[in-house]
Order: sequence, then structure tokens, then C-alpha cells
Amino acid sequence: MSLINTQVQPFKNQAFHNGKFVEVTEQSIKGKWAVVIFMPAAFTFNCPTEVEDAAEHYAEFQKAGAEVYIVTTDTHFSHKVWHETSPAVGKAKFFLVGDPTHHLTRAFDVHIDEEGLALRGTFIINPDGMIKTMEVHSNEIARDVTETLRKLKAAQYTAAHPGEVCPAKWKEGEKTIAPSLDLVGKI
Amino acid sequence: MSLINTQVQPFKNQAFHNGKFVEVTEQSIKGKWAVVIFMPAAFTFNCPTEVEDAAEHYAEFQKAGAEVYIVTTDTHFSHKVWHETSPAVGKAKFFLVGDPTHHLTRAFDVHIDEEGLALRGTFIINPDGMIKTMEVHSNEIARDVTETLRKLKAAQYTAAHPGEVCPAKWKEGEKTIAPSLDLVGKI
Amino acid sequence: MSLINTQVQPFKNQAFHNGKFVEVTEQSIKGKWAVVIFMPAAFTFNCPTEVEDAAEHYAEFQKAGAEVYIVTTDTHFSHKVWHETSPAVGKAKFFLVGDPTHHLTRAFDVHIDEEGLALRGTFIINPDGMIKTMEVHSNEIARDVTETLRKLKAAQYTAAHPGEVCPAKWKEGEKTIAPSLDLVGKI
Amino acid sequence: MSLINTQVQPFKNQAFHNGKFVEVTEQSIKGKWAVVIFMPAAFTFNCPTEVEDAAEHYAEFQKAGAEVYIVTTDTHFSHKVWHETSPAVGKAKFFLVGDPTHHLTRAFDVHIDEEGLALRGTFIINPDGMIKTMEVHSNEIARDVTETLRKLKAAQYTAAHPGEVCPAKWKEGEKTIAPSLDLVGKI
Amino acid sequence: MSLINTQVQPFKNQAFHNGKFVEVTEQSIKGKWAVVIFMPAAFTFNCPTEVEDAAEHYAEFQKAGAEVYIVTTDTHFSHKVWHETSPAVGKAKFFLVGDPTHHLTRAFDVHIDEEGLALRGTFIINPDGMIKTMEVHSNEIARDVTETLRKLKAAQYTAAHPGEVCPAKWKEGEKTIAPSLDLVGKI
Amino acid sequence: MSLINTQVQPFKNQAFHNGKFVEVTEQSIKGKWAVVIFMPAAFTFNCPTEVEDAAEHYAEFQKAGAEVYIVTTDTHFSHKVWHETSPAVGKAKFFLVGDPTHHLTRAFDVHIDEEGLALRGTFIINPDGMIKTMEVHSNEIARDVTETLRKLKAAQYTAAHPGEVCPAKWKEGEKTIAPSLDLVGKI
Amino acid sequence: MSLINTQVQPFKNQAFHNGKFVEVTEQSIKGKWAVVIFMPAAFTFNCPTEVEDAAEHYAEFQKAGAEVYIVTTDTHFSHKVWHETSPAVGKAKFFLVGDPTHHLTRAFDVHIDEEGLALRGTFIINPDGMIKTMEVHSNEIARDVTETLRKLKAAQYTAAHPGEVCPAKWKEGEKTIAPSLDLVGKI
Amino acid sequence: MSLINTQVQPFKNQAFHNGKFVEVTEQSIKGKWAVVIFMPAAFTFNCPTEVEDAAEHYAEFQKAGAEVYIVTTDTHFSHKVWHETSPAVGKAKFFLVGDPTHHLTRAFDVHIDEEGLALRGTFIINPDGMIKTMEVHSNEIARDVTETLRKLKAAQYTAAHPGEVCPAKWKEGEKTIAPSLDLVGKI
Amino acid sequence: MSLINTQVQPFKNQAFHNGKFVEVTEQSIKGKWAVVIFMPAAFTFNCPTEVEDAAEHYAEFQKAGAEVYIVTTDTHFSHKVWHETSPAVGKAKFFLVGDPTHHLTRAFDVHIDEEGLALRGTFIINPDGMIKTMEVHSNEIARDVTETLRKLKAAQYTAAHPGEVCPAKWKEGEKTIAPSLDLVGKI
Amino acid sequence: MSLINTQVQPFKNQAFHNGKFVEVTEQSIKGKWAVVIFMPAAFTFNCPTEVEDAAEHYAEFQKAGAEVYIVTTDTHFSHKVWHETSPAVGKAKFFLVGDPTHHLTRAFDVHIDEEGLALRGTFIINPDGMIKTMEVHSNEIARDVTETLRKLKAAQYTAAHPGEVCPAKWKEGEKTIAPSLDLVGKI
Repeated sequence: MSLINTQVQPFKNQAFHNGKFVEVTEQSIKGKWAVVIFMPAAFTFNCPTEVEDAAEHYAEFQKAGAEVYIVTTDTHFSHKVWHETSPAVGKAKFFLVGDPTHHLTRAFDVHIDEEGLALRGTFIINPDGMIKTMEVHSNEIARDVTETLRKLKAAQYTAAHPGEVCPAKWKEGEKTIAPSLDLVGKI
Repeated sequence: MSLINTQVQPFKNQAFHNGKFVEVTEQSIKGKWAVVIFMPAAFTFNCPTEVEDAAEHYAEFQKAGAEVYIVTTDTHFSHKVWHETSPAVGKAKFFLVGDPTHHLTRAFDVHIDEEGLALRGTFIINPDGMIKTMEVHSNEIARDVTETLRKLKAAQYTAAHPGEVCPAKWKEGEKTIAPSLDLVGKI
Repeated sequence: MSLINTQVQPFKNQAFHNGKFVEVTEQSIKGKWAVVIFMPAAFTFNCPTEVEDAAEHYAEFQKAGAEVYIVTTDTHFSHKVWHETSPAVGKAKFFLVGDPTHHLTRAFDVHIDEEGLALRGTFIINPDGMIKTMEVHSNEIARDVTETLRKLKAAQYTAAHPGEVCPAKWKEGEKTIAPSLDLVGKI
Repeated sequence: MSLINTQVQPFKNQAFHNGKFVEVTEQSIKGKWAVVIFMPAAFTFNCPTEVEDAAEHYAEFQKAGAEVYIVTTDTHFSHKVWHETSPAVGKAKFFLVGDPTHHLTRAFDVHIDEEGLALRGTFIINPDGMIKTMEVHSNEIARDVTETLRKLKAAQYTAAHPGEVCPAKWKEGEKTIAPSLDLVGKI
Repeated sequence: MSLINTQVQPFKNQAFHNGKFVEVTEQSIKGKWAVVIFMPAAFTFNCPTEVEDAAEHYAEFQKAGAEVYIVTTDTHFSHKVWHETSPAVGKAKFFLVGDPTHHLTRAFDVHIDEEGLALRGTFIINPDGMIKTMEVHSNEIARDVTETLRKLKAAQYTAAHPGEVCPAKWKEGEKTIAPSLDLVGKI
Repeated sequence: MSLINTQVQPFKNQAFHNGKFVEVTEQSIKGKWAVVIFMPAAFTFNCPTEVEDAAEHYAEFQKAGAEVYIVTTDTHFSHKVWHETSPAVGKAKFFLVGDPTHHLTRAFDVHIDEEGLALRGTFIINPDGMIKTMEVHSNEIARDVTETLRKLKAAQYTAAHPGEVCPAKWKEGEKTIAPSLDLVGKI
Repeated sequence: MSLINTQVQPFKNQAFHNGKFVEVTEQSIKGKWAVVIFMPAAFTFNCPTEVEDAAEHYAEFQKAGAEVYIVTTDTHFSHKVWHETSPAVGKAKFFLVGDPTHHLTRAFDVHIDEEGLALRGTFIINPDGMIKTMEVHSNEIARDVTETLRKLKAAQYTAAHPGEVCPAKWKEGEKTIAPSLDLVGKI
Repeated sequence: MSLINTQVQPFKNQAFHNGKFVEVTEQSIKGKWAVVIFMPAAFTFNCPTEVEDAAEHYAEFQKAGAEVYIVTTDTHFSHKVWHETSPAVGKAKFFLVGDPTHHLTRAFDVHIDEEGLALRGTFIINPDGMIKTMEVHSNEIARDVTETLRKLKAAQYTAAHPGEVCPAKWKEGEKTIAPSLDLVGKI
Repeated sequence: MSLINTQVQPFKNQAFHNGKFVEVTEQSIKGKWAVVIFMPAAFTFNCPTEVEDAAEHYAEFQKAGAEVYIVTTDTHFSHKVWHETSPAVGKAKFFLVGDPTHHLTRAFDVHIDEEGLALRGTFIINPDGMIKTMEVHSNEIARDVTETLRKLKAAQYTAAHPGEVCPAKWKEGEKTIAPSLDLVGKI
Repeated sequence: MSLINTQVQPFKNQAFHNGKFVEVTEQSIKGKWAVVIFMPAAFTFNCPTEVEDAAEHYAEFQKAGAEVYIVTTDTHFSHKVWHETSPAVGKAKFFLVGDPTHHLTRAFDVHIDEEGLALRGTFIINPDGMIKTMEVHSNEIARDVTETLRKLKAAQYTAAHPGEVCPAKWKEGEKTIAPSLDLVGKI
């Protein structure tokens, strides 16, 4: 069954966040929108550019009331060193979550069993802990954070306006569609 | 286990394509890149706008050597009528695939059991039938085809240049990264 | 075991009925006689002629205190469009029930697994929700609604006169048989 | 799963036929169309009227190249006596098949376990042993053989003209429908 | 395990008895001695002579306070006709029990699975519903009711005189044996 | 399932016979008719009278080409002493079979588990080892060997005349019935 | 697991004892020491000599407060006759226990399945029903009751003097050993 | 099932024998009679007296062509030390078998699970590896080797004279009994 | 799963300790640090040197508040004799624990099934019964008790100073490391 | 079962070794002695001191013909960065093996499931791939490499001299013990 519209499973992980080690759980991420971004491994090739991409848009995520969580199967110890040694990752002000037990990675179905690493998966989770969008790439193909931002806003808009749906390519501020019997078969 | 980097499962479905009914299978989609786009149901609200969005970028997909397949759990009979009656869908020159047995929808893990409809899922499949990217939305949140195009090109570039990976936000023509030992821990 | 003299299983489906979408359940069909007619798929060849046949006798069913339900594995969205675009189906004033989950079709044992469509099955159900007659055809063979009307009346007569049975070919108004010991071996 | 379009299961029963006891099997009924009619029990109330109804149309069945088989869970001994003692049954020139093991009755899914008797079921079987139509009534509701004749002819017509389907209420000699892409959504 | 000295299992069957249809159960046969006689099928060859044999000794069974039940796997409808049409069976004043579900026949372990008929079994049951003697023949070998009468009386005598046993060939009025320690090894 | 018309199961037992210990098996009893008579225990009350009864008719059994076997769960050692000490048993010239393993007693379904003894069972077995009649009494009710003789002869007659059946009460020399279609429903 | 130091299992058997039939159970043997002696079968070759051996030492067993039970798989009826006819067994004043159900023989693990007889087993049981010694021979090898008496007395002595053990070959009146730490490794 | 008349199970153990460590197996003990004597533990209280008892009769066992094996769950290392430190055990010229895996002890069913030690069990095994007698005591009750010698000789005598059995208390040189039919019931 | 940081499983064994036999359990070892040393077998080659090694450092263990337990699968009887006969083992003032049931040896996963002996395993257990270190050698490789002492002290130090860890090679009195965020990635 | 004297299970891992990424397998470590050292996680507190300790004795391991492998559940990418950033780890010239799949860690039974990290385990493996010693600590207790060196030499000595065992505390050059029967119980 798809993960879409299911609750995030319980987890308890250590993260490096603004110079501190903190615990992150399925409870702690509730209450605001969450963007969970899995990456294969610290210290590798295009992961830092993805972290940097997220860092550069972090102000926009915050403005949208969303928090960002980067996850790898490394420890939070590695994440601290990564933050200190990588010029790109050093910009990150959000959570770098270690998943050495691989439980979180498996719970989001992005674990590569023969490598012990995560696929590039991005998940938008609403404040109730419900997964609303997912996007997973084979690891040689990186993501674009602006598209994640667009989806986040579409998800927030439809959450706030239960009677409407966003048409294709919808961007913040555009018109949405209010479904009605008359529209069936007419668009 | 994630569907990424697995083979498309065998299927045999009827599609409406350029005024004809044709059979589409896991074999027939091989040989070129395929973009498989699931939608909830014909005749509904934002589905036509998504079909239209795809139609308007179809020339670009073709230029990129890719074919597009729209799939719903309706019959191909419904798809013919949808094409005839919807101004938006009428623009579609690609395959409108009927999946009345729901096998294809289940094979891509986008089936909503309690509704009998598909989630909004988009899959890029390489010419060998291997799934390279997936993107699934809760049905109230529509997609943007331009992002699919960007991913397709990144997937094609890395397929063509096995020794390189695309950094975040990579767009056609930009520099990629050639992984090397020296880069480990340095980006 | 045969479905005859068993209760209709629980279901909850959306139907198109007189320009509206309404919910139909195993409860909502109780209280009057129900005629449930399965068809393979909207927009196909002899289905509209069967719907039309039912439509032309609908007044008689109503006079007999019975309601008519047409069911396919399509959505109610497709049924609305079918009603709007088909001259034959447009005459229908009864319920066009969508069964996209295929649950109802399977509950009446008329599902063709390899096609995802229904067989041509007709069921007469008494006001208590008990199935009294069934008739199923291979899909290339259409039905005749007048025979369904004849059976409905025979079923209603024997329900109203528990001590009697209808002889072969019985039509409304004809004599029935009151079983008695003396008749055993004498007819 | 429905019995429609499945093969008749193997059986071997004794029948009374034109003053003789003969064996009837799933092989012996092949080669021509077969009409198999189940009845609850010899010597009972409306069963003889149904046998008589079949007898009176037997010439037509023969003309259509079909054979008729009446089945009850009684022995063929009882069938001989029934034929001798019942004025109605005495007219029967077709097979009166005994099913004391109840195997045949169960194979057609018309067995009432708590009574050991059959439901009123009628089955049309093509010359290859494939069941094409079924009709089952609660036992207080008798059948009309003329409708069985109509179905037989529709089944024979569509078997002989694979490219056509019979519309609703079709009777021998009327026009049929040749499905074509153009007709989809147009009737 | 042998049926001897076990309780008759629960059953509920229809019988033809003195021109009426009546229900017979494991409760209704209690309170007096019962002789249950299974036969293969109504209308067959030596069954009527056995029924006639029972009929001619019926007065003696009655005098001994015992009731007689003839059972076949036919219906009670067949039994009525059998009684009316057979000169031999017509003499029967006891119960002709129909067993169309075959439950009673199986409960006494005299069912022939491949024929759906009973073996020739005779059972004497005491007023508490306990089986005291059984006798079963291959169907080509008929029984002699006078021996059944002799056994009935021996069973009744030992039931009435708990301290005694009947020696071989014991007939009503003859001396019995009162077991005692002294007799062990002495007869 | 009934033991009637089944093969005697394999066995190997020691018997006392004409002053010698001999082995009896399912093979050794074949080739002639066998009468197998189970009794509860050596040295008990009415068992000797039954043995004596058999002894007095032994010449007739021999004339009919049949052998007699008395079986108890005692050893053949006990049977020798029984033969020597009991005036009644001393007359026996047939086989006194010991069954200390209780296998034979269980194979004929006459074992009383809570006592370790046999019920009074009599079985007639044809020269092919097939059981043709069985008769079992609660132990307080003794048997009459003359009825066993009558059955033996009826069994032998029908075995020798496959086309005929013995009517009730049939005794050697009387008329039998040759079943034919015409007789069905006529006796 | 060994039977030594386990409780005798529940049993209920009939015995011949001083001219009477009496019931013996696992309860009735408690309260004094019991010597249970299994033998293969009444009336056989060296069994009587063993019974006689026991009979000649019976006074000593009684003086030691012990009761003797001879058990075979024969009935108590056979035991009465054995006692009457065997000069050796006739001397027995203790219990001759019949075990026709073979339960007791199996409970002491001395049953020979392929013969239905017991092995030559001797068991000494204390007044609490606990088995203290066992001795079993292949049946061609008889026992010596004097050794059983010696064991009985050793068992009684150690039971009465919990702090001591009997050395090898210990006989009544001899010195025993009081275990102490100092003796470890010193004898 | 009893161990009597079963084969010794396969084993491979180390023993201390005449100043050497040697391997003992189920094969090595074949070819002559074997007396296997289990004891609880080296260095304990009455075990040395039993070893001494065996040692003092060892010449007789040898003369009878039998070998003696003492077994405990200790190692052969302990047995060497036991032999060196115990005046009683030091007399032993036979095998002191170590069973640290407890396999041999369990194979003879004399293992006390809650102690990890053996019961006092003695087994006589014939040259074919078949167990002929067993004797097991609760550990507080020691054995008498002279009785073991008597049994060994009885076992050897009956093995050498297949047609005879030893009567109770039989000792070497005494008369045995040749079973014959005439003796049944006569001793 | 590793035994490290698990509770010692329940056990109850006899030990030789300072000239007495005493019971040792998982409860009795709690309250102080315990060093449990498994050895293959008493009386063998390098085991005494290991016992002697432990004995010579026993004062240090006592000073550190720890108790020492030597365990083999021998009995405590053997341990007493070992202590008396071995010059090396005679020095031992700690517990020599017998494990004849092998339960303790299996609980610490050092049992060699095919030999019934223990591997050379050493375990340090804290006063709460939690195993903190384990060390196991193939039996030809002996241990060095001074290293065990070093580990014991490191375990005690870190237990007493929860916020610190001992660096490699740490010996009593040396500096430890207090983990802090700042140290991550810096040593 | 203990891992001692079992084969290393198959594995395939990436390691950082002298500035390169290389593959290490159960095959590649064969042919010389291997010392496998598990540690909890890169970048943590006392792990670098343990790596440094190993580095400082690496020449001795090499001289002894042994190779050293450090393993954590981190990736080899992390190991490269660790080597570059940690002054202590930077001294390592042996293999830093990444185990992101945790298979190797589980194969040596040192995985902490709730943390996803390894315990401090050290294993000496002979050139045939057989584990000869193991040592595991709770993670707060570090190891001393000199003791590992001592064990390695003892293992090598006994491997080279099959007839000898090392006594406790044995160090290279000291006398060993050649086991002989005479020594049993004498040391």
C-alpha cells in the first residue's frame, strides 16, 4: 500500500541541530508542516549540493511554517563532522538526523538493503503527521528544492481550503478548482 | 522495498491512442524512455488540467525521446469518450491507458483500496524497463510537468554518463559531478 | 453455495440518479423490491440497448413497487457522462451505480477477473434484502426485461401468498397451485 | 467465481429416456447445445408443470439442435415411476436424469444443503461443454421455457457470428450489433 | 468405534405415515423400542418384499411395544407414491422415512458414497435411544424379519432383567443365565 | 464408512484348532466362505453356549463350504485351556483364534475400548476376502447360528447368480428376483 | 525419562484374590509397600514357576509389610481358571490382576506391541505410590524372588534412615554408609 | 517402549582401562556379552563399594565370556584420578567409561535431568548388541553383583538353547523347561 | 544477540569452597563484582595453571571487591578431589563450581556440544548481575588473569563515573575521557 | 553456539586503506592471521584511542604475520574523513572497514539492535578463516592491544605445535605443556 495519507510510524532518532545533539520523534515533528529529505550517505558527492540547496531555501520553508529534516543512515556523530568539514553542509540550520538503526529509512520505504543506505526520498508531512507527497529518485539523480516548495504550498492550500483542488502546475496565488457535479465531464 | 531500480512488472492493458484502441505491455514500452502518469478517474476535476499540461509539453518529451502514458482505473472505452468530450483531454496525442483490472495501478503501488482509484503518481522508466524516479501525491495536490521533464533529462544524462552524478537542481547543460576519492568529504 | 435466498452483502456505492450523485447501500435498497442489473462497461455496444430496454419498462417496475439499479465497474463520474452523451442511456430515470472498487460486482459473483468487468447478471431482491432470482449471461448475449418483469411478479405473488406456488410460465392473474398432500404424485 | 464460460465438470449419472435407463456424462452431452434444467423433487407440485412446459417446446429445442436434460436428486427409478404416473411428466421425451449422489447438483451450485434438493436452475451449454447462461430461482418461483428458447437462439447466433452482439430483447431474425470503435460512446 | 451402545445422533426427517406427512426425530422415536430398517431405494427390486415382510409382522412388533421405521435416501414424496403404486409397500402401516439429505443414512454408517443409496441395515434401539443391535447386508442379500423379532425380544428381556444374559439361540420364554463367580470357567 | 463390501484387513493370529496351535491370516481364510464370530472373553457366561451352538451346526457350515472362526482378545493359550475345561467349548472343531494384540478385533470395529474385549459380532466373508454381511450385538444379547446359516446361503446364492437378488426371508431353494426395467415400481 | 522416582499412573483393574473378584487401583495399593510383577500370559511355561516362587516367599513379603500383585494382559476370568487348574498358581494367595485393556502394562513400559503381552518386569513401589526399583527381562529369562526381597528391604531401610545409603550387596542388618563431606573421594 | 530386545544405540566414549585411555563404541562392545553398569558420580559414597563388588566378581564375568563397563557422566580424566585415589575403585580392571556428553546415559534412559547424573542402572547386552535385561534403582539403593551374574548365565543359557526357558530362580546347571503344547495350562 | 549487558540467567549449582559444599545461584553472586571463569575439565593439563594464576591474584580481586568462580561441567565431588590432589588447584580459596547439568555452561554460550565440556570463557559481571565483558578462547589457548584484573577495574571505574569512558589500555589511576559534544570528531 | 572454532561467515565490505577504497571479504582475509576489531562509531570518544593503540603496535602485528581490520557500522566514506580529521586515527595504516549493512557486525554477534552500533569486540582468526579467540566489552570499557598480541602469539604457537598447550599467562618463548596421560590429575 502507498504511504500517501498514512501516519508517520513511531521513531526516535538523534539529530545534529544548530550545534547541539537533540532527539527527534514522530511526535516532535507534529504541529507544523515537515519536509523529510533522505540522502544516501554523509561525505558523498551530490549530497552536499542537495543540503546546500535546502539551506538556501530554508528561509522560505520557515516562512511557510515548515521544518526541514535531512536523514541518512549515518550517526549524528558523523553529521556533526560533516557539518564542520563540508562548506556546503555547514550552511544547514535545520535538523541533520542520524538513522544508524535504519528504522526510519525502512519506515519510509527508501532503504537499499544491499547497500545499507537510503534512496533520495522527499516527503511532505502535514501537522497531523500524515504523509501528503512523496518523491524518490535513484541515487544518481538529484532533486530540486523549489519544486518541493511548490508542492508544500499546494498541500497547505488544499489543506486550508477543503472544498478545492489545485489544477496542474498550480502555484501560490493562482485560481483553484471547486469540484461540483456540473464540472464532471466538462473540463 | 522501494520500486526504484526495479523492473516494471508484466502487464497487458488497452489504451486509446490517436483514435485507435491499442494494446500496451511492459514489453511495448521498452526501447525508449517512458513517463507513466497515474490519475484518479476520467471526467473528474483537475485530471483534465494535468492531461492538458502533459499535452502542452508533449513535443518536448518526444524531442527527449520519451513516450507518455496516462493511466486510470477506467476502461479504454471511457478514455475514448473522455478524449471526445473534454476540451482539455482532447489535446492529448499520447496513450490514455485503461486499467479496469487495477493490476497496473497496484503494480506501481498507487491503488487506493477503499476507492478503487489511483493516486497521482508519476514514474520515469528507462529504456530497459527500470523505474528511475517516482513521485506520488495525495489526490488533492496536482503535479507540474516541467519538473518531470527536468528529472527525465537528469536521468537521461546520468544514464549516458555513468561516471557522473547530477548535483541538486541540475538542469540540462549544467555541470555535473564526477565522483572521485578525493571529493569524499570535500564538497 | 448459491446466492438464492441469501441476504445481499453490505455495500456502499455512489450512483448517478436524476442529475444527482447519491449513495446506495444494502440498507437503502430495502423496503421495496429491487432489480439489480449488472452490465460490463459504460459506453459499450449492447449495454445502452439494455439500459434503454429497462428505461422503457421502468413505469411498470414502479407500478409493481420495484426500484431498478444498473451497475458497472465504472465510476459514477463515467455514469453521468454516459447519461449525458448516450441517447439510449439518457432515458434512464433509475439508479446508475458506479462500482470502481468492484466489491458489489464480486459480492454478486459476476466479476470477470481477467477483464475487471461484470457479467450480464440480473437479480431480483425482496424488500427484506433476500435474493430471490438470479440470471447471468456470457456478455455477448443480452437480456429481455419483460421476462424480468414476469419473474418479479411471480416472486411478489408467492411472497404475498405463502401457501401457493406458481406453475411454469405463470403470468400475473393466472391460477397458482396450492400444494397439498393429495397433489403429491398427481400432477 | 461465476460458472459462466467455464467447462461443465465431469459427471456420470443414470437417466430415464424413452423407456430405457441410459448413462449421461459430461462427454455425452457435448457435440450439440444442451439445456440442463434442475428441479427440486419428483412428484412435487409445480415441477410437473415445468416438465410439461419443456415437453411442449421440445420440438423447437430439437429444431434448434439442442437436447434437454431434467435433473433432480431422486433416483432414475423414481423418474421412471414419475414418468409413468404423472400425466404431465409422461409427455417428456427428453432425459430425466437421476442425481442420487447430488454431485451434479453441487457442480452447478444449485444444491440446498439443508433439504438435499436442487434449486430451480436452468443452464445453456454450448457444444464444447461451456456454460453460456444460467438462471436460478427460489423454488416457489417457476420458469418460462420460451425465454430459455430465446436465450438459446441468441447464444447460438453470437456463437455463429463472433463479430456481433445481440442487443437487449433480441429475437431470432432481428438485427444485431457489430461492435466497432466508432460506436463506443455513441449508442 | 462401533455404534453399539451409543446414542442415536440428532436428526429431523419427513416420513409418510398412514396417509400423512409427519416429522420424525431422535426425540420422537424415544419412549418405546424402535426398529430402524434402511433400504437402498424406493421402487426397486427386493425392497418391496422386505417392506411387505415387515408389514406382515407389524402386529407382533406392536405387541412387543416397538415401532418400525423404513428409511431410504428418497424424499417422502417418493414414499407416498411408492405406497400408492406398490401392492407390497401399500401394506405398510409404519413410518416410511425420507432421507434426501442423507444425514440419517450417514449417521448409521450405511451410506454408499458412490451410489448415494443406503445399505440394507437394521438397528434395534432401546427406549432411551441407545443402539443395541445392528445388522448390515450387501444389497443383493435380503433380511428375515423374524430374526429381528427374536433379537428384539432378547434385548427387551435382558433390559428387563439386568442380572441375566440370554444364551445362544434364546427365544422368548426360555431359560436365561444369571452370571456368577462360580460359573466362570464352568460352562 | 461401512465395512460391507470392503476387503478384510491384513492380520496374523495364533489359533487353537483340533489340538494344535496354527497361524491364521487374511490370506489363509481366502478360497472358501468364512464365518468370523467375535465373543467377549473365554471362560465367561453365555460365550460357551454360543460356541456350542456353532459347534452343533458345524457340519452344515462345512457342507456349505464355509469355515468358522471364533475370536476373543484372549491368547491361544487360554483357548486351549478353555477347550479342555469347558464341556460346551470342547465340542468345537473349528478355529479358536486368539487376538491378544486386539488388532483383529479393532479391524472389524467391534472393540470395546474401556474393557479391552470384543462385542458379539458375526461377519460373513466371501472367498475373495470381501465382507458381505455383518451383525453386532450388545454383549448381553446372544446370537442364533441358524440365521447366520440362512444369510450365508443367500450370500452364496446371489454370488453364484449375479443377475438375481434374494427377496426378504429368502431360504435356500426359494425363488429369487431377476431385476429388470419392467419391474421398477411394479412390486 | 526413567520411571524411577515417579508416581504410579492412575489405573483400575479387576483381580482374582482369595476366591473373589476385586478391584485394584493406584489408590488401593498405597499405604504399604507393593511389589508388582508382570508376566507374559496365563497358562504358559515358566510363568507358573515364577508365581510359585512368589507364593513360597509370600510370608516374608507380608512380614516386611508388602503386598504382591501379579499382572498379565489376560482377563480376571482367565486368572480364576488359571488358579483352579495350575498346581503352581493355585498356591498364590496374593492378587492376580487382569489387564485386558493393557493400560497398566503400558503405564509400566513393559508392553510388547507386536505380541500384546507383557515383558517380565518387577517394580517395588513405596507406600506413597513412588516407584523405587525396576527390573525387566526378555521373556525367556526368569527372575529370582529372593533378590526382589533383598531390594525391598534395602529400599525400606533407606526410606526409614534418610541420612544413609546401602552399599553394594547390602543385606538386612548390615552396616550402611552415612554420606559426609569427608568421605568424598575417600572410599 | 521398553529397551529390552532393542539394539544399543550408537555411541563413542572415552574410557580409562588398565592405565590407558581407550575409545569404547557400540561396535567395540559387540562380539561378547557386555554388562553395562551406570553409577551416579565418581568419588561419591556407595559407588566405590559397587565398583569393588564388581571387581571382586570380575574373574567370574570373564570366565563367562563377558566384559564389564562402569559408566558415569564424569570425564575419563576423573575416572583416572578416581582409580588412583580410591582404594575400592583401584581394584577395577574393567572399563571406567566417561560420559561427559550424557548421550550414553540418555540412550539407556537412566539420566536424571535435574542433577545431570545417572541412576543406578545395570544392563546385560548379548554379543549382537541386543539388550536382554535391565535393572534400575533409585540412587539410595545399591545393587548386588551376584544377581547380575545369575541373570547373565540364564541369558546365556537360553541364548544357547533356543527351545528352552529358565524357570524362576534358575541357576546354572539346573533343569530348564522345553515349552510344548502339552504343557500349556499344565504347570 | 550478544550476552554483553544482559542479565545472568537463573541457575543453582553446587560448589566446593573452603572445604565445604555450598550452593551458588544467580542471586548469591549479586551484590559484588563477580568474575566467572569456565574451564574444560578438572584434572586436565593447563586448567590447573589457570586456577593457580587466579589463586595468585585472588587477593587483588578481593581488594577490588570481586569474587571469583571457576566452573567446569564436572561435579562438586570431583572439584573437592581436584582441590585435594592438585598442588596448583589446592591454592584456590574461591569457588569451584560444579555444573553437571551443563545449564550454566550453556547459559554463557561456552558449551562444546560434541565434547560435553566448556570453552575457556571469562565473564565480568557487575553487582546487579549484568554481564559487562566476555572473553572466550579455543581450549588450546590459555588466559592471563592480569588482563582480567585490568578490565575489572576499568569496568568498576566507568560504573562509578557514569559520565566518563576509559581510553584504550587504560589502567587504574590513569586519566579517563568525559564525552562531550565538543570532542566528537576531535580525538 | 559459540563462534569459537567456527568459520567466518561470507561478507563483502568496502574499506579505507592507505588512501584507497578496497573491497574486503571472508576470502581476502584468509592466508594470514587476522585481528578483527569492532568499534561503536567513527568520530566518538574512546574509539580513536583504541585505533591509535592498534596503530602503535601495528609493526608487531605485521612482524607476527597478522593483518588488522577495524570495523564500524559507518560507511567507508566516513572512515576516510575520520582518517583525515582525527590525529589519532590518522596513524592507522591498516584497514578501516565500513559495515553500513551491519551484516558483518551481526555475523560476529556484536550488534546492538537498539543503537545500530557495534560492541567493542576483538576476534583473532587463523589463516584458514577459523575464529580462535573472542573478547567483547560493554562500550564504556576499552581494550588493551598488548593482550591481543599475547593471545595472537599463543594461538600461533599452539597452531604450530599441535601436541602442546599454553599454560596460563604464557608469553612468547616460555615453556608450554605437552599433554600426556601421566599428567592427568598431577598438575
